Amino acid sequence: MNVVSYRPAPEELSFTFGGRPAVRRVAPGTVLEIYTEDCFGGLVRTVDDLPSKVCEFPYLNPVTGPFHVEGAEPGDTLALHFVSIRPARDWAVSTTFPHFGALTGTHTTAMLQPALEEVVWMYEVDTETGTVRYRARRGDFTVEMPLDPMHGTVGVAPGASEARMTITPDAHGGNMDTPELRAGVTVYLGVNVPGGLFAVGDGHCRQGHGEVCGTAVEAAMNTVVAVELIKGAVTPWPRLEDDEHLMSTGSARPLEDAYRISQHDMVTWAASLAGLDELDAYQLVSQGGEAPVGNVCDTNYTMLAKMPKRYLGRPEVYEGAHTRLRALGEQYLGGR
Amino acid sequence: MNVVSYRPAPEELSFTFGGRPAVRRVAPGTVLEIYTEDCFGGLVRTVDDLPSKVCEFPYLNPVTGPFHVEGAEPGDTLALHFVSIRPARDWAVSTTFPHFGALTGTHTTAMLQPALEEVVWMYEVDTETGTVRYRARRGDFTVEMPLDPMHGTVGVAPGASEARMTITPDAHGGNMDTPELRAGVTVYLGVNVPGGLFAVGDGHCRQGHGEVCGTAVEAAMNTVVAVELIKGAVTPWPRLEDDEHLMSTGSARPLEDAYRISQHDMVTWAASLAGLDELDAYQLVSQGGEAPVGNVCDTNYTMLAKMPKRYLGRPEVYEGAHTRLRALGEQYLGGR
Amino acid sequence: MNVVSYRPAPEELSFTFGGRPAVRRVAPGTVLEIYTEDCFGGLVRTVDDLPSKVCEFPYLNPVTGPFHVEGAEPGDTLALHFVSIRPARDWAVSTTFPHFGALTGTHTTAMLQPALEEVVWMYEVDTETGTVRYRARRGDFTVEMPLDPMHGTVGVAPGASEARMTITPDAHGGNMDTPELRAGVTVYLGVNVPGGLFAVGDGHCRQGHGEVCGTAVEAAMNTVVAVELIKGAVTPWPRLEDDEHLMSTGSARPLEDAYRISQHDMVTWAASLAGLDELDAYQLVSQGGEAPVGNVCDTNYTMLAKMPKRYLGRPEVYEGAHTRLRALGEQYLGGR
Amino acid sequence: MNVVSYRPAPEELSFTFGGRPAVRRVAPGTVLEIYTEDCFGGLVRTVDDLPSKVCEFPYLNPVTGPFHVEGAEPGDTLALHFVSIRPARDWAVSTTFPHFGALTGTHTTAMLQPALEEVVWMYEVDTETGTVRYRARRGDFTVEMPLDPMHGTVGVAPGASEARMTITPDAHGGNMDTPELRAGVTVYLGVNVPGGLFAVGDGHCRQGHGEVCGTAVEAAMNTVVAVELIKGAVTPWPRLEDDEHLMSTGSARPLEDAYRISQHDMVTWAASLAGLDELDAYQLVSQGGEAPVGNVCDTNYTMLAKMPKRYLGRPEVYEGAHTRLRALGEQYLGGR
Repeated sequence: MNVVSYRPAPEELSFTFGGRPAVRRVAPGTVLEIYTEDCFGGLVRTVDDLPSKVCEFPYLNPVTGPFHVEGAEPGDTLALHFVSIRPARDWAVSTTFPHFGALTGTHTTAMLQPALEEVVWMYEVDTETGTVRYRARRGDFTVEMPLDPMHGTVGVAPGASEARMTITPDAHGGNMDTPELRAGVTVYLGVNVPGGLFAVGDGHCRQGHGEVCGTAVEAAMNTVVAVELIKGAVTPWPRLEDDEHLMSTGSARPLEDAYRISQHDMVTWAASLAGLDELDAYQLVSQGGEAPVGNVCDTNYTMLAKMPKRYLGRPEVYEGAHTRLRALGEQYLGGR
Repeated sequence: MNVVSYRPAPEELSFTFGGRPAVRRVAPGTVLEIYTEDCFGGLVRTVDDLPSKVCEFPYLNPVTGPFHVEGAEPGDTLALHFVSIRPARDWAVSTTFPHFGALTGTHTTAMLQPALEEVVWMYEVDTETGTVRYRARRGDFTVEMPLDPMHGTVGVAPGASEARMTITPDAHGGNMDTPELRAGVTVYLGVNVPGGLFAVGDGHCRQGHGEVCGTAVEAAMNTVVAVELIKGAVTPWPRLEDDEHLMSTGSARPLEDAYRISQHDMVTWAASLAGLDELDAYQLVSQGGEAPVGNVCDTNYTMLAKMPKRYLGRPEVYEGAHTRLRALGEQYLGGR
Repeated sequence: MNVVSYRPAPEELSFTFGGRPAVRRVAPGTVLEIYTEDCFGGLVRTVDDLPSKVCEFPYLNPVTGPFHVEGAEPGDTLALHFVSIRPARDWAVSTTFPHFGALTGTHTTAMLQPALEEVVWMYEVDTETGTVRYRARRGDFTVEMPLDPMHGTVGVAPGASEARMTITPDAHGGNMDTPELRAGVTVYLGVNVPGGLFAVGDGHCRQGHGEVCGTAVEAAMNTVVAVELIKGAVTPWPRLEDDEHLMSTGSARPLEDAYRISQHDMVTWAASLAGLDELDAYQLVSQGGEAPVGNVCDTNYTMLAKMPKRYLGRPEVYEGAHTRLRALGEQYLGGR
Repeated sequence: MNVVSYRPAPEELSFTFGGRPAVRRVAPGTVLEIYTEDCFGGLVRTVDDLPSKVCEFPYLNPVTGPFHVEGAEPGDTLALHFVSIRPARDWAVSTTFPHFGALTGTHTTAMLQPALEEVVWMYEVDTETGTVRYRARRGDFTVEMPLDPMHGTVGVAPGASEARMTITPDAHGGNMDTPELRAGVTVYLGVNVPGGLFAVGDGHCRQGHGEVCGTAVEAAMNTVVAVELIKGAVTPWPRLEDDEHLMSTGSARPLEDAYRISQHDMVTWAASLAGLDELDAYQLVSQGGEAPVGNVCDTNYTMLAKMPKRYLGRPEVYEGAHTRLRALGEQYLGGR
């Protein structure tokens, strides 16, 4: 088994997709062990570390990478299987942030009202019990919620010679902030530039739907990703696969366009997978599909279209990459 | 037990919330047995019954009611507990409809492209096995999906002397089209006019998230609703409660506003229920909340904010109406 | 000349389109002299009269009417020519209003930020010099701007048995808040119910584009409207005509849908008027058309598509109603 | 007078803002003579040259530049005064383009309807009479419209190490597609990187409001720009100044956010220029301001807030750059 470990030095962190050379080259079939820093660059460590004070724009939401996948060319697809996502510390953090979040005026939803107060919440992370503990800042209310680790940000270099802040999700991936991107899931990303140049970051111990306040339970992560390359497979928007579901993503504004993109991709994909007429697929997805919300706070919003494989006759997609990568991941975990 | 049965004659069906006198008066505590017609008025019965041919605008999406609840005054809240929702026939129907649905130009998202083809799909409904059967119109693909009956439309007369088509969801309820509105759930609706004047319709055997093609697996229903009145309780937008969750709804355009309304209501409601500061509640809902999509096809879009009660210390809401109505419903079902 | 005068008693003011009987019947060809109260019902008369204190929801934005036009049937079109719009007082008023306006969170763009301060501005209206005078509330800045009287609200009873608050613009007209609706302009409204039931209100001494703070320079008006009925002419959305332009309106959310509706109507109308292929008309409107913003603050936003008649070969529309009504108006003004 | 001429070779055209080295360095005070190619790279020359056939994505909407302005640093502002914009040929071109434009489904407003037909319209450009001639493709309808040359695209390198396709307008400028950007106007752009790196392209002989079909009357241009640098002046979004008006731009989706950004910038700018309280400025802009639509078809939509200087006491902005550059431009034109 080809295992590569990579832990970025602080100056190696990346803040864009595109516009950066690769930090490593990996061959298809590689199992990649990486460390990802939290969205604050690890600088918010107490309730007194206000992000607007300790962080410097645009050095937010660092990603680990980019990684050049050998042989990847435009028109191919990268398959990234998340073997495991484990919090790197016994604490995590969430905050409000001035003019960021769904229930406040923002840079673009510009308003004359003053910003909401900037507040930091520290969470205790217990990987033994599989929980995170919330504590109110005012009063003594506290509650445990299940640990459900995920990555908010995964993507490749965009096409058209663009470079995009990691905070922005779009057709190249980026900060989609969907809880569906957890261990056991394979992400498919269309390749736009030689090597693909994928990167991963923004670990969350858990996240509500839409990340309404703008941040999740943010944490550094030790993450294992198994990488494959599917030659000649075009993927217009990032797709996900778990054992039971296929998923399409869409990232845009307004939110209905994110919904439209994801459902349109699922309908046309389902039609091709099940040999259905397009309107027949439209009908089937309309009755059988789910629509998990990713984020409703970033520079583009993200929604998913999620379809049980059994409603489509359990088709094999991407040459069975998920099954193979899942097996590779289990072999890796068994061997440790 | 006070049980009232009502099956509307065709001319008694209603097509607006508001602007209509009550068909019956019911006392709080009543168990109401009703029949609801499907969204096509029962007129689409074969694949050749194109809705644009057999239905006449605006006589679409009929509701059963309105019902006057004795003693209900503006500033009160109606609690409607759905005891059971059973398909009235062994078939159901879904269609595309010209310029309606999320993946087509519409009346307001006006486009020069011609309409999608109008197509009807008939479903077999098997209440024994708890399934509906989809059949492609072109080719022989077929699949069973679980029966999960719900009502797309429930609401009261709006305030401000308005009357609204039943197709439109807003603060008074209406065509929210959320699969969360199933048997076992209590819906809370703020009263705007004396008697509240609630009505119910648009039964679905099941529905995907967002009702992307514009219609669900549409069916006439035999439905049992247990009714209570909570005096002096203001409900700004419809709320739902099941055994484990509290839910707020929002209906608006663009879709992010539906999200904002529902999350804003959940945050402020959670703050008041758990004695939390508003920003503390914002944080808690951000990490613990879900956001089920209702519809992304109607004249307003609908989203829900859904919060596990256990994250809020299992507060009693609306004087425990859900628990009481659930018990009343079980008593009713046991007595049959 | 058939001249009808009507000044509503306070209890005769109407707050919805639809759901109200006519206050008068008028024959086509009538010149109607009406008084309209300002959007605050005349209750905000000093800077200390905060709207949230002196006004009572939903008794806002009163309209004068509705008027039943004899012979009007669904499928016809009313032509309302604004002969003159004169401020009824030597003062006018504007305000911020809690959670209303484009640069604040609102009922639907729900935010956790506190409301902006509620402030009243009084304007001096000088009909001799044709100016209104703005005075800052803090400091001594003052400036004169041209008087440009208009009506924010004009509409008919909606179809489908609906009744809508006067604050809401939609296919029936309503609170479109466009400065294009000034004296010399003819408004065309599709008839949905017998008699049409049109009403007029919400006079503005002038208004910026979009009414960004939520209110204009609000004033009671003495207004003269000449009325015609065009039988068998369908008008899907309100249209306007002045001596040099044709205009289509659209009212919806998000704002791009208001744009789409108005442009779609103009493209298809232009195609039919100039005998153009639809794509040829799309091209011509794309290069020759304007897009005045109505409101970006109401429950639906409003935009107009405005096309010089000369680019379309100066077609006659609605049987030349504008020319006839304009002549009638001049005759009326000459005779006083 | 320091005059620099630059005509890009085809391989020197740029398709992004950011991510490219400067083609020239210019000193503040320079008068720059440039040639800009049309949005199709000059490849659509007859009605048979369908853009989807003769153009290759992403090589669309080329800009001339970028130009490095000596001494420009982040936190400064570039002032670009358009001295003259003259069509370089006696023809211009417009087209529909598959899944692009306001009245069709697009990449993000994803729909299942087939694309509109791709059609090319050729325009005759007569600089003597100052007209362009439209000819319908089907039938013999033709009409002259005034020539009103403008640039759709002007911007600088974005911040945060981003590179953006020239088609996208945002805080760095880009493809704003506003007819206000004509000769006699000064554009202010905030500097994000050393040298600013501005570029100009996408000439239009004229354009309707919103560019509803997706393209204007597209033309290569010979354009003269006078350049200044204002040190220490922060410009959050592109601003424009003509002799009588100040203008702020906003580019975002949905369209109301473009409106909000532009109005927010104008309100806060006006407050600072006229020494007004922010709510007083909100009121003044609400009654005195205009809101010209830029584009409603690009990847972000653009709107402007436009305020007569006389309503603000004719303040000097950006150290009087517009007046100086206008004089420089006149001197240049006089000297030819």
